[in-house]
Amino acid sequence: MLPTPPFAPPYIAVIFVNSRTAQDDAGYGQTADAMVALAERQPGYLGHDSVRGADGLGITVSYWTDDAAIAAWKAVGAHRAAQAAGQRRWYAAYTTHVARVERAYAQPDASDATVAGECPAEA
Amino acid sequence: MLPTPPFAPPYIAVIFVNSRTAQDDAGYGQTADAMVALAERQPGYLGHDSVRGADGLGITVSYWTDDAAIAAWKAVGAHRAAQAAGQRRWYAAYTTHVARVERAYAQPDASDATVAGECPAEA
Repeated sequence: MLPTPPFAPPYIAVIFVNSRTAQDDAGYGQTADAMVALAERQPGYLGHDSVRGADGLGITVSYWTDDAAIAAWKAVGAHRAAQAAGQRRWYAAYTTHVARVERAYAQPDASDATVAGECPAEA
Repeated sequence: MLPTPPFAPPYIAVIFVNSRTAQDDAGYGQTADAMVALAERQPGYLGHDSVRGADGLGITVSYWTDDAAIAAWKAVGAHRAAQAAGQRRWYAAYTTHVARVERAYAQPDASDATVAGECPAEA
């Protein structure tokens, strides 16, 4: 897996840091996959990066155009049901930080070409 | 490992998403540990969360009081040397997003008590 290239700031990053319980791996995996597929169809979704370590700690960062896109995503019924199940069964603990990205950069430089409004030839 | 509890917004999150090369695991591990120890002594450092997956993708999010704290950390000589080595040897690709955290929350609720300036008894 490669890092998602940066977008043109400003945009919103939702940083979800979580610790899994040992319960219901199959149910968790199915729901996590379904939520990714659903998020990708939401207006204002830009992308995400997600990693889980061997010790059960996970970080998922999703990128969104603006606060309205996040509010709409929070209101989706299937997403609300998944969050409730997560709180009951799948997560021992989690912290969410909602943050406005002010600058972003990448290596190799080619990734920077995805920043809208910048022409690599002129950089 | 448990998620770092949230801080009192606003604060800065530096989201570093990276893909490791297969090179020099020992050197990388030593330097990564040294950089964590050094960052923890920097003025304005609040905390960090870090995960690496089995496929080599890693996400480290560090939390800082403000932009001045990040600028000072970027200027530390040993940190600059580590970043240069990272670009040369350890990272196949990376993306960095610098973002201002506007809101944050956690489960279990006890974690919210770490938000400065809020008294749980009054919540």
